[in-house]
Amino acid sequence: MKKVGIIMGSDSDLPVVEKAINTLDEYGVPCEVHVFSAHRTPEQSKSFAQNAKANGFGAIIAAAGKAAHLAGAIAANTTLPVIGIPVKSSTLDGMDALLSTVQMPAGIPVATVAIDGAVNAALLCIQILAVSDDSLAEKLSAARAAATEKVLAANRKIEEKYNK
Amino acid sequence: MKKVGIIMGSDSDLPVVEKAINTLDEYGVPCEVHVFSAHRTPEQSKSFAQNAKANGFGAIIAAAGKAAHLAGAIAANTTLPVIGIPVKSSTLDGMDALLSTVQMPAGIPVATVAIDGAVNAALLCIQILAVSDDSLAEKLSAARAAATEKVLAANRKIEEKYNK
Amino acid sequence: MKKVGIIMGSDSDLPVVEKAINTLDEYGVPCEVHVFSAHRTPEQSKSFAQNAKANGFGAIIAAAGKAAHLAGAIAANTTLPVIGIPVKSSTLDGMDALLSTVQMPAGIPVATVAIDGAVNAALLCIQILAVSDDSLAEKLSAARAAATEKVLAANRKIEEKYNK
Amino acid sequence: MKKVGIIMGSDSDLPVVEKAINTLDEYGVPCEVHVFSAHRTPEQSKSFAQNAKANGFGAIIAAAGKAAHLAGAIAANTTLPVIGIPVKSSTLDGMDALLSTVQMPAGIPVATVAIDGAVNAALLCIQILAVSDDSLAEKLSAARAAATEKVLAANRKIEEKYNK
Amino acid sequence: MKKVGIIMGSDSDLPVVEKAINTLDEYGVPCEVHVFSAHRTPEQSKSFAQNAKANGFGAIIAAAGKAAHLAGAIAANTTLPVIGIPVKSSTLDGMDALLSTVQMPAGIPVATVAIDGAVNAALLCIQILAVSDDSLAEKLSAARAAATEKVLAANRKIEEKYNK
Amino acid sequence: MKKVGIIMGSDSDLPVVEKAINTLDEYGVPCEVHVFSAHRTPEQSKSFAQNAKANGFGAIIAAAGKAAHLAGAIAANTTLPVIGIPVKSSTLDGMDALLSTVQMPAGIPVATVAIDGAVNAALLCIQILAVSDDSLAEKLSAARAAATEKVLAANRKIEEKYNK
Amino acid sequence: MKKVGIIMGSDSDLPVVEKAINTLDEYGVPCEVHVFSAHRTPEQSKSFAQNAKANGFGAIIAAAGKAAHLAGAIAANTTLPVIGIPVKSSTLDGMDALLSTVQMPAGIPVATVAIDGAVNAALLCIQILAVSDDSLAEKLSAARAAATEKVLAANRKIEEKYNK
Amino acid sequence: MKKVGIIMGSDSDLPVVEKAINTLDEYGVPCEVHVFSAHRTPEQSKSFAQNAKANGFGAIIAAAGKAAHLAGAIAANTTLPVIGIPVKSSTLDGMDALLSTVQMPAGIPVATVAIDGAVNAALLCIQILAVSDDSLAEKLSAARAAATEKVLAANRKIEEKYNK
Repeated sequence: MKKVGIIMGSDSDLPVVEKAINTLDEYGVPCEVHVFSAHRTPEQSKSFAQNAKANGFGAIIAAAGKAAHLAGAIAANTTLPVIGIPVKSSTLDGMDALLSTVQMPAGIPVATVAIDGAVNAALLCIQILAVSDDSLAEKLSAARAAATEKVLAANRKIEEKYNK
Repeated sequence: MKKVGIIMGSDSDLPVVEKAINTLDEYGVPCEVHVFSAHRTPEQSKSFAQNAKANGFGAIIAAAGKAAHLAGAIAANTTLPVIGIPVKSSTLDGMDALLSTVQMPAGIPVATVAIDGAVNAALLCIQILAVSDDSLAEKLSAARAAATEKVLAANRKIEEKYNK
Repeated sequence: MKKVGIIMGSDSDLPVVEKAINTLDEYGVPCEVHVFSAHRTPEQSKSFAQNAKANGFGAIIAAAGKAAHLAGAIAANTTLPVIGIPVKSSTLDGMDALLSTVQMPAGIPVATVAIDGAVNAALLCIQILAVSDDSLAEKLSAARAAATEKVLAANRKIEEKYNK
Repeated sequence: MKKVGIIMGSDSDLPVVEKAINTLDEYGVPCEVHVFSAHRTPEQSKSFAQNAKANGFGAIIAAAGKAAHLAGAIAANTTLPVIGIPVKSSTLDGMDALLSTVQMPAGIPVATVAIDGAVNAALLCIQILAVSDDSLAEKLSAARAAATEKVLAANRKIEEKYNK
Repeated sequence: MKKVGIIMGSDSDLPVVEKAINTLDEYGVPCEVHVFSAHRTPEQSKSFAQNAKANGFGAIIAAAGKAAHLAGAIAANTTLPVIGIPVKSSTLDGMDALLSTVQMPAGIPVATVAIDGAVNAALLCIQILAVSDDSLAEKLSAARAAATEKVLAANRKIEEKYNK
Repeated sequence: MKKVGIIMGSDSDLPVVEKAINTLDEYGVPCEVHVFSAHRTPEQSKSFAQNAKANGFGAIIAAAGKAAHLAGAIAANTTLPVIGIPVKSSTLDGMDALLSTVQMPAGIPVATVAIDGAVNAALLCIQILAVSDDSLAEKLSAARAAATEKVLAANRKIEEKYNK
Repeated sequence: MKKVGIIMGSDSDLPVVEKAINTLDEYGVPCEVHVFSAHRTPEQSKSFAQNAKANGFGAIIAAAGKAAHLAGAIAANTTLPVIGIPVKSSTLDGMDALLSTVQMPAGIPVATVAIDGAVNAALLCIQILAVSDDSLAEKLSAARAAATEKVLAANRKIEEKYNK
Repeated sequence: MKKVGIIMGSDSDLPVVEKAINTLDEYGVPCEVHVFSAHRTPEQSKSFAQNAKANGFGAIIAAAGKAAHLAGAIAANTTLPVIGIPVKSSTLDGMDALLSTVQMPAGIPVATVAIDGAVNAALLCIQILAVSDDSLAEKLSAARAAATEKVLAANRKIEEKYNK
């Protein structure tokens, strides 16, 4: 199976990124995790991106805060789909990272998820791999059914409490 | 080859969406275009999404403005990757559509591109299909090279004008 | 008397929603509470909305955060008045939920209240039912008088403290 | 049938408000239109609100721009449901009017629609009156069906053009 | 000497408003403090404003949060200068109160200070009264000199610590 | 009678500022108009402010756009009330000027009006002078009555057109 | 004299950038102009930045819109001072470019000027070169004096028109 | 070596500003630290700025919050490069200080860094001094290399933990 690359701009992003790692684990999708900075280790970041396809990656997640250039920098060096996670930092509630990640110019797309939306970043990668992997697609359907069941259970609990 | 579905919430979104259609055309990626409203034709929208995988689609683009629920509504009914285009409308400069599209809760991802970013929405779909289609991946690389050449040409022109 | 339906997108919205439940209780207006997710249990949500009028509901409250599609999804499936409560979540201070709830396209209205404004959501439902229920209208008037008295009492306390 | 009151803060709001008048006309719902300013004719505004219920009104629409206090000022003087339309003015793209209208304190609800959302303001009033008027409810359902048909027609046209 | 009226929309605004009371006290400017709600005790609020000039007031401070209509409602009923303090509440960081207070339509001015800017609201009132009261003007000048001295002292302390 | 000083940061602000000049003219309040830049002619700006009280001014209006420091710079050099007009420029819709004008630190108040709110800036000055000038106060009351009559007239016209 | 490098992300930024070129020309500061894209010609951009110091540059201006990564990408590859110009594009009024340019993480500074603030970007470069070039510093002082004179002239014209 | 001036608007800004002092210390760049208020000690602030060049300064850092005029006021009185640090205060998350600092009119540039971005403010000053000081430039390059190594070390740690 193709791997997912997970790149964070700083190891301080790990608490957000961990949810993506765990989600991929739950689906049995192999991933590689790296700390590459668009500005401090641009060579490593570029080199990873340029070789990602040849190295067996199918999609890349990039998480960064503030003027979050990482996802765009990765995307500029690969034609693999790149998922951007805007990370909330100490000011502006993540709006700076959101706009820096999502407002990419035509030609270099970044598939952006919600601020701190690491679970969905992982799910997008799994959906991308599942386009040509039916067993993965089935796992996604099963997880949807489980999520539905979880909401139904929460609903039953609330209904029991409030609707006599 | 798998098809790309392009759904717009209203035919007034066509001027934005057309750029996605044209981009897919340039790459020879087949697409189907529909007007489905999350609120006015929810059944058609749901039915399209639920059958999209079986009907040969590999990715879906959903474009909508204001309280843009369309991409999320499509995403809730398929495990295919769904790309959301927030469309600018008469107030708030597209910020309402951006937040309504990108801030999805964990479990139902929408891969969001820039406001009115239809070219990148198409490119993301092509990148997704290219994960398992090497000739498409080559076309993407070629297009990147062409885009690079275009910037280089613009650079030469500017350099000639200003740097004597 | 017609009932009020209260739908929350996740049971984590309960602390906000509880104020709506309590307010309806104070007025003796019957309500039913459910957890329905626009994206994870769309069928339950739709089915509830489509049958709400026939099942004796007079108005529906929908509370959700982030890309808050719930109120719109309910409103698309009923002609009953739907009140949307945008719920504040961990980023953006509720602005995402506000815009996702209030900026509905023409044809499918959502009556939006303040971020986390559950008391007012309940009061709107009571006002709606009171249009054809004079005893309820009288209770609303009485509550207004009581609220006025409460402000007057606070005023007297402040006046005593500061205006010698 | 109960009437709908439509109040605008200034006659410059008429281009927005007219869509509400026309929508009510289409449904045969009687309305009265007034220009009352929360700040320049507060007495008229208050007097209208206080007597609205006795004068046969079932709901009130209030439209205003900038620091839009009109809907709240009306709501403070009636227990009828009050619908607020935030009107876009020359700066800030309507955000000032939206926040001034929707962020009401607990106790005095204003049912807020989208910026310049006059059609939905009218539809909300019709939905409110339809709670106890089945023929009106049927008209709403018929209009929904017509709106659905209109989207379906737009869809057919787009499908014919793009999906050969 | 003319008095300053200080009106807060709710007694929960007292922690902010207290700084205005204290500032007026420091200058020996008499003030009266009230809790009047634009929406819950509109009569008291209006009556206070209409009689303020006759009752010996020279300026009025109005503090409120969220959809902060209080300052505008006071201003609509007096030709005395009205100072608005936007109060920060649980969401949106005071931006809602700021826009609701400052964006007044032509004809009814509200002199707006910073979010939670109660000290400056009091100072503005003192400045207004000082236009025709030279001893008050001298106190303002003296306070400016004292404030300057306080900054100079802070500067000396920092200079001693860092500039050897 | 005391004069009003009107300072604009650039002569490009004149179209906005002219409304303040005209309003003062209507009330027969003498004014002096200057172009002083907080950054390019700081000496003139400071000198004007420091001598304004001695030179017979009773209030000062300062209008500026973008990082609008003018009102604050004037206010730092006088104890006269200073009214700030945030002027909309080519980007950000006046939000930059609004925050730069209104968010003054404790000690140096600026009485801020709406973005481009020149009429209200003039009215505030007139209200300030009217605190100790009854004939001016009467003119303000008369203008309020005229404004009320104007709204009433607009109301009659709308009522005639729509309420048969 | 050291040169200034002016890099724009796309030749569509030229109308903004031209003001920087003209300003440098007025001061006789040599500059080189290039179109380098952070995403489409990252190699050229990096190579320029890495060699800029050796090639006789003293400062670099980078102008870009939307998710404006260019200035940061240049700054990551040189220790020369980099000035970022956020360029306004078709949505969000330049706020996306501003936050993407200014909110750089610690370690890689970008000296950011106002949205579309090309004149100031050039002036900053001249100020930087003038730190060790007294004749340039004198030109800056002279230009300041000329700018002051220009405001004084505008002031005289306004004074003549309005202050009789 | 030329000195760096560090001015803060209030000693409450010290926790932010200290990081700039420490960064300059690490590079052996002499600095002087002052508390000057644009509004409360404008004379000291102006005098410092006007004499800074003659007193051996090469660049000035100015840190302030809210309606942050300090950097602009300094910049208006010197042709040395001025770096502005917008400081986050109790409301609006630093957005007010950012816009008040960065949106300077043409003619008076302020080189703005991120909200609370004191480290980068210091680095910009060092970069400016390094334009004509090769040993300083080498220190900057060495620090970049060290920062790269730090990210590489963080990367190795993450890789060891997650990539087996």
